[in-house]
Amino acid sequence: MGIGKNIQRVDARAKVTGQAKYTQDLMTQPMMVAKVVHSTIANGVVTGFDLDEALKVPGVIKIVTCFDVPEIDFCTPGHPWSVEAAHQDVQDRRLLNQRVRYYGDDVAAVIAEDEIAAVKAARLVKVHYEEYPALVDVADAMAEGAVAMHDNVPDNILKHTSFALGDESFDEAVKEKGLILVDQTYDTQRVQHCHIELPVSFAYQDGNGKITVTTSTQIPHIVRRVIGQALGIPWGQVRVIKPYIGGGFGNKQDVLYEPLNAFLSLQVGGRPVKLELTREETFADTRVRHAIRFHMQGAVRPDGTLVARRVEAFSNQGGYASHGHAIVANASNMIKQLYRDEKALESESYTVYTSTVAGGAMRGYGIPQGDFAAECLMDDLATAIHMDPLAFRLKNCMEEGYKDPHNGITFYSYGLKKCIEAGKEAVHWDEKRAAYACQTGSRRRGIGMAIFCYKTGVYPISLETATCRMVLNQDGSIQLMMGATEIGQGADTVFTQMAAEVLGVTEDKVYIVSTQDTDVTPFDTGAYASRQSYVSGKAVKKTAEMMKEKILEYAAWKLKMDQQTLDIRNNMIVTAEGEELLTMEALATEALYSLERSVHITAEATSHCKENTFASGACFAEVEVDMPLGKVNVLKIINVHDSGILMNPKLAEAQVHGGMSMGLGYGLSEELMYDAKGKPLNNNLLDYKLPTAMDTPELNVEFIELQDPTGPFGNKALGEPPAIPVAPAIRNAVLQATGIGFNQLPMEPQRLVAAFKEKGLI
Amino acid sequence: MGIGKNIQRVDARAKVTGQAKYTQDLMTQPMMVAKVVHSTIANGVVTGFDLDEALKVPGVIKIVTCFDVPEIDFCTPGHPWSVEAAHQDVQDRRLLNQRVRYYGDDVAAVIAEDEIAAVKAARLVKVHYEEYPALVDVADAMAEGAVAMHDNVPDNILKHTSFALGDESFDEAVKEKGLILVDQTYDTQRVQHCHIELPVSFAYQDGNGKITVTTSTQIPHIVRRVIGQALGIPWGQVRVIKPYIGGGFGNKQDVLYEPLNAFLSLQVGGRPVKLELTREETFADTRVRHAIRFHMQGAVRPDGTLVARRVEAFSNQGGYASHGHAIVANASNMIKQLYRDEKALESESYTVYTSTVAGGAMRGYGIPQGDFAAECLMDDLATAIHMDPLAFRLKNCMEEGYKDPHNGITFYSYGLKKCIEAGKEAVHWDEKRAAYACQTGSRRRGIGMAIFCYKTGVYPISLETATCRMVLNQDGSIQLMMGATEIGQGADTVFTQMAAEVLGVTEDKVYIVSTQDTDVTPFDTGAYASRQSYVSGKAVKKTAEMMKEKILEYAAWKLKMDQQTLDIRNNMIVTAEGEELLTMEALATEALYSLERSVHITAEATSHCKENTFASGACFAEVEVDMPLGKVNVLKIINVHDSGILMNPKLAEAQVHGGMSMGLGYGLSEELMYDAKGKPLNNNLLDYKLPTAMDTPELNVEFIELQDPTGPFGNKALGEPPAIPVAPAIRNAVLQATGIGFNQLPMEPQRLVAAFKEKGLI
Repeated sequence: MGIGKNIQRVDARAKVTGQAKYTQDLMTQPMMVAKVVHSTIANGVVTGFDLDEALKVPGVIKIVTCFDVPEIDFCTPGHPWSVEAAHQDVQDRRLLNQRVRYYGDDVAAVIAEDEIAAVKAARLVKVHYEEYPALVDVADAMAEGAVAMHDNVPDNILKHTSFALGDESFDEAVKEKGLILVDQTYDTQRVQHCHIELPVSFAYQDGNGKITVTTSTQIPHIVRRVIGQALGIPWGQVRVIKPYIGGGFGNKQDVLYEPLNAFLSLQVGGRPVKLELTREETFADTRVRHAIRFHMQGAVRPDGTLVARRVEAFSNQGGYASHGHAIVANASNMIKQLYRDEKALESESYTVYTSTVAGGAMRGYGIPQGDFAAECLMDDLATAIHMDPLAFRLKNCMEEGYKDPHNGITFYSYGLKKCIEAGKEAVHWDEKRAAYACQTGSRRRGIGMAIFCYKTGVYPISLETATCRMVLNQDGSIQLMMGATEIGQGADTVFTQMAAEVLGVTEDKVYIVSTQDTDVTPFDTGAYASRQSYVSGKAVKKTAEMMKEKILEYAAWKLKMDQQTLDIRNNMIVTAEGEELLTMEALATEALYSLERSVHITAEATSHCKENTFASGACFAEVEVDMPLGKVNVLKIINVHDSGILMNPKLAEAQVHGGMSMGLGYGLSEELMYDAKGKPLNNNLLDYKLPTAMDTPELNVEFIELQDPTGPFGNKALGEPPAIPVAPAIRNAVLQATGIGFNQLPMEPQRLVAAFKEKGLI
Repeated sequence: MGIGKNIQRVDARAKVTGQAKYTQDLMTQPMMVAKVVHSTIANGVVTGFDLDEALKVPGVIKIVTCFDVPEIDFCTPGHPWSVEAAHQDVQDRRLLNQRVRYYGDDVAAVIAEDEIAAVKAARLVKVHYEEYPALVDVADAMAEGAVAMHDNVPDNILKHTSFALGDESFDEAVKEKGLILVDQTYDTQRVQHCHIELPVSFAYQDGNGKITVTTSTQIPHIVRRVIGQALGIPWGQVRVIKPYIGGGFGNKQDVLYEPLNAFLSLQVGGRPVKLELTREETFADTRVRHAIRFHMQGAVRPDGTLVARRVEAFSNQGGYASHGHAIVANASNMIKQLYRDEKALESESYTVYTSTVAGGAMRGYGIPQGDFAAECLMDDLATAIHMDPLAFRLKNCMEEGYKDPHNGITFYSYGLKKCIEAGKEAVHWDEKRAAYACQTGSRRRGIGMAIFCYKTGVYPISLETATCRMVLNQDGSIQLMMGATEIGQGADTVFTQMAAEVLGVTEDKVYIVSTQDTDVTPFDTGAYASRQSYVSGKAVKKTAEMMKEKILEYAAWKLKMDQQTLDIRNNMIVTAEGEELLTMEALATEALYSLERSVHITAEATSHCKENTFASGACFAEVEVDMPLGKVNVLKIINVHDSGILMNPKLAEAQVHGGMSMGLGYGLSEELMYDAKGKPLNNNLLDYKLPTAMDTPELNVEFIELQDPTGPFGNKALGEPPAIPVAPAIRNAVLQATGIGFNQLPMEPQRLVAAFKEKGLI
């Protein structure tokens, strides 16, 4: 029993048969429907409304505008609250905003008896604006005289940080004779999460006066807090319920529309109100992966020693701070952690408000951007010195035992080199590199790679706390309650395995409560930062150990034996030698119904995690570029991951498949585009090119399993890593195939054809 | 803060505004509808079905008959399970029954897409029977040659128990010279609970494969267990959710249709199926108060000394055992506990299967029947010796310190005499008794009284166990989770007050989770036996004390102070001297979000209650009898209760009002009648005479508050007692008014007119 086994997902049957309940499935009848009125300018101020026509629509109950909401600024990101003001998230938006900061900003909301009336009325709301120039790019926003998106940030630079490592400055370091220098700008684009289930919630006032919001979120306890903050009511008066959710990928790590939904319900006497976004709204009005521009400089000796790097990063934050500077800071830190710079590393990062949709959390949290820049630079450096890029990486990458000089995290276990070696073998790297060394013709092949590292959870930058509760059922089975959330990644299955492992019961005797309900669910900050199996897993382990002690204590009392001689195996109380004494069922029935000593055995424990560790890995991609078509065909791709001991190898593999698919879209086709006025151009799944199954090659996965001493079961992050190295691996394969390093994502046909034409290749 | 205050019900606003969610409000769409096919004979066997016509009804999905259900006999009553087979409830029914034991027995069920199709098809199901003679009364069932209702009980006597107290037998005791003897038979009738909300549930299979049943029940954890038993599946695979319920009064202390509902959902792949009874079904096919016939003999000295009593009780159980013999045993025990018999008390009790609807739990659990018999006898004895019945009772009633010789329970606090004195004064007993001593004419007045005693909870007859969990919210407020259930009686409010009292916070900072969900709610056997404020109250107290310790431990750590010097008052951490140090809000925020020591403070504790105590009280009724109309007008009525310290006097008063109203119907108008074939005659609210507000006089209430040393806050039972003494008090008032002792309930006009005619009074 327990960890390391390929048990079926605990929710597999429910999801396949449709029994799994999502937010939409839990709505009772009747329910009002709310629709948000979004701004149709990117930058400006609402000066007034004309609601007459909208109010005439039959079925309209109420229209609320930005002039009706509390004068409270709140923050949306899914971070643990900080008791210190300096570390709190930026509180820069209201339930509805008079100051419009992107095309789509929320300026009013209609509540109606049904969806048709709500949509119709929302379209008929006339909004009057004073319009300012759109600031689409970082350069626009940083330009002299640009309108301040937020009054307290006159230069639109939300935050600027820098660090330098090494005994010398970059400029001094590169004075060394014989160094080869590379100076490039790498651009990552704005992409969207594209979770299947759109943001949806419903709110009503409950029997005890609480405002209750059922929502598709990754972070129910944080949603509770933010609703309280946004509405200016005690947090305890808010209840948030999170059922199964159809994907989040970080977009549901922001508290997007739940506060407005709660507010709207209270505007109609606490009656149930539903608020569901369309796909178009989800693209335009929720969160995106930050477009970050990296100006990278690297200096290398001809022998392949990385001497110095300089990184300047400009992150396009959009109109609201959301996760803000944490994203680009994460990227810059990873660039530092991935390689040793013998003499110098300098890093400058800027997070800049623009008048586009806000950037937020998305699988990888800045690392895919940083990794693209770092790994493009590495191939460009290797190319410059005519060195094999794999050998170049092996020579310069960080190793086990590395301790980050800023946050103090040590690479306790670190299988990066083993991953590189395994991938090299799997793709026949040396043979392929040689075979593709020199090509002509309209179809050219290349093989490339990229590596990455990724820290597990957010300690010590932020709080890592998790609580678990277990309850003994009447039949000896176990209820497992987690504050941590299943968002499709398989967390429920892995927690079940962990509990079974420690308790000595079979997984079918562990019933995880998948729904989080902040009224009864133990506290946890939620699903993000690939933290759950590591951080929340520690809470499972601690609680299960406590639960086992309590069960054995009762068993010892009942059996009149020494507790130390007892154990649980295979749903039985046994002696240390394995002699079967009592079934768990008999024990539970006795414990509850004993006339002598009745006790409902439960256990609950918080694990405050003050450790962290690094996962790592590599992607290898073999491509064929159809040059006249500008089309990159991925012939073979493999991710090799160092994520510690795997709790469920099949689930781990599926997790990697999903991440690789996301990386393929990032590398080749996806981009949310804006026109010069700041209006989104392709905020729908027809025009936004999310790869389909038809676009996806066979996805290969290997793991290097090392026991991490800090993981509860030797495990470390796996949720986000798979998405990271794919785009740079493909870029580097295209570089080998065509000789052209594409420094701007995505590598879509138009861009490739233009480059090939420019270089006279077609 | 805390106990003894008249705080508003915590659910008052929700119930008034309609925000409170009942089972029906929680149903999602779409949902199938099930209807039960009931037998149209009272006694017999189903030999076959003809389903052709029923299956043709558009929308019918499936029809399940008694030939399709598991061959598992199960029990329905809401008792804690016993680990000893000898103490388990009688398992004598199946999900659907081939052996039909009352008119209305469940023989098949239709599942359809909507209610209309389900009802139509249920009517078209043709059932073939082999019919046996109906056994409506106990006498029929005990007659020589009567068909056995259950094969294992050939004489239809489910149970016969007896006890005798005193140094002599009753027959010897009554040989004493000069004794006055009374020998009467007192008959109580079959009544129904008439809760507003009909039995309703819906069932579906949940994400993790559990069969989940949301139901209007008093006993969610017991429903879970019984569903598991009835379906033959592990109890842990069942989840039961209990939202607000619209009354139960004991009828929802049986597991009525939840197992069938669960089974029907599983018959359609776990899809949601609703099963709601009509009022007619509720009367005919759920539970009733047992009709019990008491043959009572009493012997008294002319000075008013009660010398001996003999009780023979025959309880009409109906077709299934349900709560069975516990009801009449409870009645017989109370008759014993209410008065001292100087020489002898003999008791024989029979519980007899008949072919009518099963008797089950109903507010008072046998005591209203026993009290009617006991208190009629006392007035008949007092009349026989021309003694004031109040003085007669004061002379013979039990007093504080009495210890029951069978169950060992002591009357720790016992305010019965104080109740009698208070009532005597309130109604001007002596003046009224004198004034009404001798009357003629068509309208005659009388004043009467009755007393009772009532034990709190079920210890030591059965297990008393209760668990509570508390959780500290992010804002310093408290979540309070009880396994015990709010069923309209105000339990949630009182638990909130208890928690606030112990924790030192205001009630508005305590959020009770009113819904029980067996997946997450701590274990408790539920709402019955007036046990909750006493038994479950101990769990609140124990858990709150533990919670307070944990909060103060954290506060002491945070403040670097000695924990022993700290306390909580008015939502603040204070010193023993009351100096305010820290708000609960600041403490909670720190505890959760501290980077140094993050802990989610929660507490959970089981209280295994091994104590019991007795409540008592008296009812005084002044009536005017319109003799030609046979109509009893209650001019004044007052209940005086000894229920220990009151947690919330206003709620306590409301509780008494409800009970008195039930007692008035019991005394004057209610009876569920059957014809000779065993068919119910008036199973609807037109023909069944439930008193309306128009029939109800002003209800007066007084309390004698004594601190009971065993109650968690000095409190003891109040839920059921108010219903007990009303009917005999009215009967005794009518006795004074007319000289006729009505020995059969209800005292409805037809019966009165007949008696008055027979006696030549009209």
